[in-house]
Amino acid sequence: MSVSPFAPKSLPKVPDIEGVSLAACEAGIRYKGRKDLMLALLAPGTVAAGVLTRSKTASAPVEWCRRQLTHGTARALVVNSGNANAFTGMKGKEAVAATAAAAAEAAGCEENEVFLASTGVIGEALEPERFTGHLAQLADTASADAWEDAARAIMTTDTYPKLVTRTVQVDGQDVHVNGIAKGSGMIAPDMATMLAFVFTDAPLCAGAAQTICAKAADASFNAITVDGDTSTSDTVLLFATGAAEKRGVSTIGDPGDERGAAIAGAVNEVMLDLAHQIVRDGEGASKFVEIAVEGAESAPAARRIAFAIANSPLVKTAFAGEDPNWGRIVMAVGKSGEAADRDRLAIWFGDIRVASDGEVDPGYTEEEGAAYMKNAELRVRVNVGIGAGAATVWTCDLTDKYISINADYRS
Amino acid sequence: MSVSPFAPKSLPKVPDIEGVSLAACEAGIRYKGRKDLMLALLAPGTVAAGVLTRSKTASAPVEWCRRQLTHGTARALVVNSGNANAFTGMKGKEAVAATAAAAAEAAGCEENEVFLASTGVIGEALEPERFTGHLAQLADTASADAWEDAARAIMTTDTYPKLVTRTVQVDGQDVHVNGIAKGSGMIAPDMATMLAFVFTDAPLCAGAAQTICAKAADASFNAITVDGDTSTSDTVLLFATGAAEKRGVSTIGDPGDERGAAIAGAVNEVMLDLAHQIVRDGEGASKFVEIAVEGAESAPAARRIAFAIANSPLVKTAFAGEDPNWGRIVMAVGKSGEAADRDRLAIWFGDIRVASDGEVDPGYTEEEGAAYMKNAELRVRVNVGIGAGAATVWTCDLTDKYISINADYRS
Repeated sequence: MSVSPFAPKSLPKVPDIEGVSLAACEAGIRYKGRKDLMLALLAPGTVAAGVLTRSKTASAPVEWCRRQLTHGTARALVVNSGNANAFTGMKGKEAVAATAAAAAEAAGCEENEVFLASTGVIGEALEPERFTGHLAQLADTASADAWEDAARAIMTTDTYPKLVTRTVQVDGQDVHVNGIAKGSGMIAPDMATMLAFVFTDAPLCAGAAQTICAKAADASFNAITVDGDTSTSDTVLLFATGAAEKRGVSTIGDPGDERGAAIAGAVNEVMLDLAHQIVRDGEGASKFVEIAVEGAESAPAARRIAFAIANSPLVKTAFAGEDPNWGRIVMAVGKSGEAADRDRLAIWFGDIRVASDGEVDPGYTEEEGAAYMKNAELRVRVNVGIGAGAATVWTCDLTDKYISINADYRS
Repeated sequence: MSVSPFAPKSLPKVPDIEGVSLAACEAGIRYKGRKDLMLALLAPGTVAAGVLTRSKTASAPVEWCRRQLTHGTARALVVNSGNANAFTGMKGKEAVAATAAAAAEAAGCEENEVFLASTGVIGEALEPERFTGHLAQLADTASADAWEDAARAIMTTDTYPKLVTRTVQVDGQDVHVNGIAKGSGMIAPDMATMLAFVFTDAPLCAGAAQTICAKAADASFNAITVDGDTSTSDTVLLFATGAAEKRGVSTIGDPGDERGAAIAGAVNEVMLDLAHQIVRDGEGASKFVEIAVEGAESAPAARRIAFAIANSPLVKTAFAGEDPNWGRIVMAVGKSGEAADRDRLAIWFGDIRVASDGEVDPGYTEEEGAAYMKNAELRVRVNVGIGAGAATVWTCDLTDKYISINADYRS
């Protein structure tokens, strides 16, 4: 598998997050010769927040996390790749319980303080014996700087690990936010999942953590699409160890005040960067595309129009063909079902106004549009001429490589 | 362009529809060396019914038809291919008016008795002068048996013409229903449209015609998808000349009584056959797939689940790869947003039960599934275990040929 042209030249150096230690190993769940199991140990008092898939066929680990988020404290996170433990019936629930028990013993905590995520093939029983035996040793060897190992262990068909860090000042102290994610598109050849785990030493109370996590996920992971398919396992978790409290950072209870906004800003940036990296690593992607819609009836309406454009196979194949085919954008706006004034519609490719007042712009030339389309990163702006609602989403193009990746028979 | 493997061996012989005469010619609107303009003349008293795109960026001819359907009588139909006259602003409206005027003069009727449809590139001005001069001659040469000419003149990237006929007995007399359609997928390289025109000599009153047309379109053209993209120009029109009245068939006012049901049945069959032919001619299609969903909360819920499956790029690429990847079907059910009981979900490929009670069927083998997937025509059945709602939709697979057709730069 060739690495995405958008892969970063090198991984960032990330600071330790006090209260977080990590380890990963080769458990041989499905892959050979690479790490596929990770454990994160979290200091006592760590607050957990999260956003989980809305799929009606959610996986067993997602259901487990949904239950644990009601109390919102965490001491361990176990993630495996290679098997999603989704659509596995009673056996799936048993595998989750066995994994939580083994992790609790390894971490010295309660089972309900363990968070779990699995990604990989759907519908095959996950045998926890394959990896529960590794958890004690992972706990013994966990270290503060194993971020790259962790980012690599959760990959499925990702072509590069995704690791992002930000540091902000709160109460005169550095507070850190590190995040890792996986996803190559929303989806991968019969392994469909987007996972993201964000860690901070900020002392967040549970309510603030959940608000910050949900808002950041909405503006990032919920604003990207590779192919419109939603996984059974999508999981975003934010863990706040609170270790910065020892350095004089007092508890943050209001995500809206200055101190809360500082953390929220860093979490937003980490999640948005991770989300963009997932799109850039989208299966077969050769273009990274921002779709900004304005002038809609409301922000949700603008987002639905933006997704109608971003998910249209015709629009996506036009990007792949470097075709400034704005007629397909008009079509996608029309099919969104949201209010749009056809006769006031305007479209820009980058700064080039292609259409205005419901027809092709008199000053636009096809040569200009075609030259713009040769860029690897594209920006499409659409004003639908109704109101003040605006939204931005990100996507990639649809290439023949996507087809060959996904049409190959499962080996 | 190679012809679809699903193209019929030969076109059916279709009977005349008394009150309908047709002609087509090369107007050179976009294509060279093929007919691209057709005229149908309709006898006085012809009733018109129709279903038009719900796109918010509907084309000028669609808006014209919407207005004429309010009175529901027709004397002429003009269809051109090569230019959709969509997103063409005021010029588009002027082109529609000029075409209607020229057709009314040629047919000897009022302008508001002319129905219009255009299919082809979006956003380029349609110069009606290019073809209005041909309408008088088309009217002079129109004949009762030019069905194949008409079916060919409306094609864009279709690889074969679509022509269907049915005959039913009403009041002891043969009544005929002929239909033509175009569409290669919902869409085509920057020419997005599905058009269908159905003609009958049955004496339908306007209300019955509209009910029959809307119900038949809902169960056929609204139950197919190639890529989920909706055209600015989708148009289904039913014309009933009433000529069978002269043979003793009295007016049909109730689409639900025995005589109405006979016509409705024939119209349903014609539209369903045409709709299937559009899917079979879907861009790059190598598989024709029926998706039947049962056990849903309601029929509309079942249809939404069926479309979530039929439009999923992951499911469609699995069909292309002959991969019995039922995990992706589970994913698509989950993302539909409709109620589904994950632990009672069952899936069949043809007669093979692949999954039941929320996990893989104990008797299922991958070999059996893989062998089934080699068929050119596939049937997927899903029971979501909630209620009695059922729906069936039809789609094709997503192949690299679709990408190359649609990613090629517009010439």
